[in-house]
Amino acid sequence: MADDGVDIVFTPSGRRGRVARGTSVLDAARALGVDVDSVCGGRGICGRCQVHLAEGDFPQMGIVSGPASLDPLTEPEARFDARRGLKPGRRLGCHARLRGDAVVDVPPESQVHKQVVRKRADARPVEMDPAIRLHYVEVEKPDMHRPSGDFERLAQALSGQWGLDDLAEIDIRSLHRLQAVLRQGDWKVTVAVHRGVRITKVWPGFHDRAYGIACDVGSTTIAAHLCDLSTGEVLASDGIMNPQIRFGEDLMSRVSYVMMNPGGEAELTAAVRGAVDGLARAVYDQAGVDGGDVLNLTLVGNPIMHHLLLGLDPTELGQAPFALATNAALTLWATELDLENVHPDARVYVLPCIAGHVGADTAGVVLSEGPHLADELTLIVDVGTNAEIVLGNRDRLLAASSPTGPAFEGAQISCGQRAAPGAIERFRIDRATLEPRFKVIGCDLWSDDPGFDAAVAATGVTGICGSGIIEALAEMFLAGVMTADGVIDGAAAARTARVQADGRTYSYVVREGGGIDIRITQNDVRAIQLAKAALYAGARLLMDTLGVDEVQRIVLAGAFGSHIDPTYALVLGMVPDCPPDKVTSAGNAAGAGARIALLNQGARQEIERVVRTIEKVETAVEPRFQEHFVQAMAFPHKTAPYPHLAAAVDLPQPRPPGGDDGPRRRRRRRD
Amino acid sequence: MADDGVDIVFTPSGRRGRVARGTSVLDAARALGVDVDSVCGGRGICGRCQVHLAEGDFPQMGIVSGPASLDPLTEPEARFDARRGLKPGRRLGCHARLRGDAVVDVPPESQVHKQVVRKRADARPVEMDPAIRLHYVEVEKPDMHRPSGDFERLAQALSGQWGLDDLAEIDIRSLHRLQAVLRQGDWKVTVAVHRGVRITKVWPGFHDRAYGIACDVGSTTIAAHLCDLSTGEVLASDGIMNPQIRFGEDLMSRVSYVMMNPGGEAELTAAVRGAVDGLARAVYDQAGVDGGDVLNLTLVGNPIMHHLLLGLDPTELGQAPFALATNAALTLWATELDLENVHPDARVYVLPCIAGHVGADTAGVVLSEGPHLADELTLIVDVGTNAEIVLGNRDRLLAASSPTGPAFEGAQISCGQRAAPGAIERFRIDRATLEPRFKVIGCDLWSDDPGFDAAVAATGVTGICGSGIIEALAEMFLAGVMTADGVIDGAAAARTARVQADGRTYSYVVREGGGIDIRITQNDVRAIQLAKAALYAGARLLMDTLGVDEVQRIVLAGAFGSHIDPTYALVLGMVPDCPPDKVTSAGNAAGAGARIALLNQGARQEIERVVRTIEKVETAVEPRFQEHFVQAMAFPHKTAPYPHLAAAVDLPQPRPPGGDDGPRRRRRRRD
Repeated sequence: MADDGVDIVFTPSGRRGRVARGTSVLDAARALGVDVDSVCGGRGICGRCQVHLAEGDFPQMGIVSGPASLDPLTEPEARFDARRGLKPGRRLGCHARLRGDAVVDVPPESQVHKQVVRKRADARPVEMDPAIRLHYVEVEKPDMHRPSGDFERLAQALSGQWGLDDLAEIDIRSLHRLQAVLRQGDWKVTVAVHRGVRITKVWPGFHDRAYGIACDVGSTTIAAHLCDLSTGEVLASDGIMNPQIRFGEDLMSRVSYVMMNPGGEAELTAAVRGAVDGLARAVYDQAGVDGGDVLNLTLVGNPIMHHLLLGLDPTELGQAPFALATNAALTLWATELDLENVHPDARVYVLPCIAGHVGADTAGVVLSEGPHLADELTLIVDVGTNAEIVLGNRDRLLAASSPTGPAFEGAQISCGQRAAPGAIERFRIDRATLEPRFKVIGCDLWSDDPGFDAAVAATGVTGICGSGIIEALAEMFLAGVMTADGVIDGAAAARTARVQADGRTYSYVVREGGGIDIRITQNDVRAIQLAKAALYAGARLLMDTLGVDEVQRIVLAGAFGSHIDPTYALVLGMVPDCPPDKVTSAGNAAGAGARIALLNQGARQEIERVVRTIEKVETAVEPRFQEHFVQAMAFPHKTAPYPHLAAAVDLPQPRPPGGDDGPRRRRRRRD
Repeated sequence: MADDGVDIVFTPSGRRGRVARGTSVLDAARALGVDVDSVCGGRGICGRCQVHLAEGDFPQMGIVSGPASLDPLTEPEARFDARRGLKPGRRLGCHARLRGDAVVDVPPESQVHKQVVRKRADARPVEMDPAIRLHYVEVEKPDMHRPSGDFERLAQALSGQWGLDDLAEIDIRSLHRLQAVLRQGDWKVTVAVHRGVRITKVWPGFHDRAYGIACDVGSTTIAAHLCDLSTGEVLASDGIMNPQIRFGEDLMSRVSYVMMNPGGEAELTAAVRGAVDGLARAVYDQAGVDGGDVLNLTLVGNPIMHHLLLGLDPTELGQAPFALATNAALTLWATELDLENVHPDARVYVLPCIAGHVGADTAGVVLSEGPHLADELTLIVDVGTNAEIVLGNRDRLLAASSPTGPAFEGAQISCGQRAAPGAIERFRIDRATLEPRFKVIGCDLWSDDPGFDAAVAATGVTGICGSGIIEALAEMFLAGVMTADGVIDGAAAARTARVQADGRTYSYVVREGGGIDIRITQNDVRAIQLAKAALYAGARLLMDTLGVDEVQRIVLAGAFGSHIDPTYALVLGMVPDCPPDKVTSAGNAAGAGARIALLNQGARQEIERVVRTIEKVETAVEPRFQEHFVQAMAFPHKTAPYPHLAAAVDLPQPRPPGGDDGPRRRRRRRD
């Protein structure tokens, strides 16, 4: 018989082919281009190439697959089973040899480019393709007769055993350790390779742990996720306050600090780097892994955090024309950012910035939400002190930043506070009695549930946070306590004692006694009006630029966005009209983008490419911004209709023109 | 007239073409591919593009060139002349516009790829093409309406104004300074670019100073040359003792120190790096230039110095199989080698090693001497404690190392000493009287010249250095005081009192009294015999491998090689026979190679490519080495004929066999 071959079909890929009898499943997979993982290179050590033999008659494939299709369990497989456990029916692809025709399933965890499961059902899938990969390799010993360097023999082995033909460099610190490690491992070592070209770490013998950290450096909080670089799994997450707060609560005050204190950027840089470094340790300690195995980090942040993290003076970002030092993505060594808790040669990838006001955090949001991949016209708003706004689809993407101010974060609100236990986060007003009910962070009861007071005794009711004030204002508007123009209506005082005159304006009293009075004042309403009008006007400006009057999907990104109810956001007119079920929260989409860039190096090229194509619109210099802003002060809007919202919610009818809008109405013009 | 063109011919290139009337000479040169330098990019600042208008009738070119061929002197040229001086007849190519046909000469100093003049007439020419180049550039100001990073606009300007389309990176420290520098220079800056792809330094405004240092890190001395990276000129040179000497005089004792003191390599590394850093400062201080303008360094050294400099443990190099950590060339940042006196982002290029015993210094020798470029079969020997030997031509190159020991450096010689004032370096013996005459370092008189004693009174005659001992032994052999087998001949004692019995052997007394007796003992002869036999045997082994019996050219490299007289080297049989006029000294060829690699980046690729093709021969494991070694103990050789030498020098006739060779003759077998 000339052809001693067997037929093999791999599932789920469906790839099939004929290979010589006796070929290992792993070799067959490689020959047929089937994606099967391996760290040890087929030596039965790592267990990454586990496969499952399907048994039965597969007439549509013309194959009968059964126990005789493979060699019986080999000794190395039995050893692996004893040491690390092999699920029933599983075989090591590198040692199971084909004896007959076979149908072999490659389970997801055995695929190199496995898909990572993300929590949100609508999140775009991530395929594993990390920039750092581990390779176990057996290196030729030195031979006096054919002298060559240890590194050169290692590179040769990586080329021969792993096809890494472009590998030509090694970090100097790894070179320092190389000779000892090779001998300690008896010429068997594992190397971490960055982008297929450069060795960043070496271990004696077999090593299969490599981790990465995706970090979102916000001006208020810094969040980090530790990921396994082979499975993509998040092993630990944590967040801390940004210690730069001691130099200024908001970004502009930190920039002012730098302007007024020459060299102050070094203090701010040291503070944020130290925080990132400490957070890195916190997450790997939580997960019980070795910091020396943290080999890759990805960072996102707004332009000022981005600059301070990189040690760049942010002064230029504090004044027109808001020039970034660079908007390109950067890859640095951990040591260049003074990160001492991770592997010193860990690579730090910093996502690109989009413009002086639209940073790497927004790039992360774009990467996570993928508006550039959809036909649907998507509006993404990430609300903080500035709101970053992205609008577009696969054809065209625009970005802008709007100066919303800190009202959404609870600042400038009389009883406002950051989201923390004790803060009101949900708010309802009875349409008949005009009585409020609310929930506070840290308690599952509503304020009119029995036992509420006892339940919140520990924290008290301390104030109202951003999402709470949004709901409160929307409910006040819907209940008729406040007009569409944002005036707390003196007329309502006749219906409830909760509306009380407050000098020349009125307030709505939420809670009295218990130490802290909580009320919503006319000034609070004005602060939110200014913020929401800025947000809306920015979005509307992008819509104008794109020549559209409607968007098909709205994504509320960021911590604030993830806590507000989409319907209330529409009621207040923070965003243009849209079916409420098409308005979703994306949570920390910037951090999710950092995680995608951590797990998939192709995503780095993707976002760098997309960022170059994004058209930037500068709101501050657009006269139409001011017009849109004025029109957008009303709830939901002075002139734009909200038919999608109206179909879902009973909006109050506009007052007849000329009605009394309240005591301060005539003074509001240039508020 | 449709064609308002003019004809221009450039000399010396001979390129000619037709360009529009009014074109600047620089633009015409660029259009015709003529090599004209510029740092300021045609702004009349740098004066690098100076040209000379030839005047006269050039019938063979069909051109009449004269004062009317160019615009009269322009105002920027007059300004340049006032500021920096313009030689008579010189014009700035960027401002001199063509009005008629012209013959324009580009003087050597105005060519980018100018040839560097080297001292040795036979040295291969070096063409300027440094890895670091300066570019003056005008950068667009930031525009809020079209936001882009300062770096991106700089890169765009470098692409547009200098064709640097691959420039995509900037060192983080330069990025830190970029925004301030751009504004300080009013958007006109000079950048240093490494290999056309990465910015390594930025200066506000115009800057035209960039320097490099070529450094030869020897185990005994470290030598450095400061070069101007635009002219190639050596501005200062200096040398210091290698401070590692306190850890051991020779390399092996330093390796032993590391073996016996774990972590000792860090001390040795710190010592040599500190010395290189200090030497760098010494040379730029000598030349009166700013260390911050030193942007490139090249380093050569033997394998152990190479490893210690890089912070690599040299232990493996002290024991078979002598495995290098890497033999590849490396490019590092100055900071990675703790060099603090130069620009921190200066690039340090370390030449490749050839084998565990044949280092980057030999690579430098090969680059300087260019055996791979010649048809002539060249033998290069670089003599130190080990001799590195290279043999071959453009077809094939071989390399080996021979364990000559330190005798050539004056060690193991009874009156031996390092080359220093007071050491005998030249030696003659009168064939009739057998009286010696000699010269010492630091004095131009021969010892039998009147006034010699007074002239050397300051130093005295303190010993005999390597070149002196070579001459002394060769003269003793030629004068018949010593036999071809290396026995100081007792029979000569009858002719001169200078041959004196010394126990069971004889010595030749050079000088008595004056504090120090200087004599050449039988043991001295034996030490040199062992050293020269090892050197010859290594060379001969390479000749065997190549299948040749004769070489066409011999180069003696290194400090020792540059001081010995080629004829005496042949008389002693240190090297195979060769016409004495084809034996030359190359001086510090390793350092010259480092300088070539500094001035021409193409030379780096060249030596990396050549090193990969060099075949390494390990002398220690070759049985024939031992045979050759034994045969080579005699002067000039026991069996090999030296016809070329015999044609130039009266060699003593071999004694009839069985003659009395002296008292120790019968015991010499395994000396």
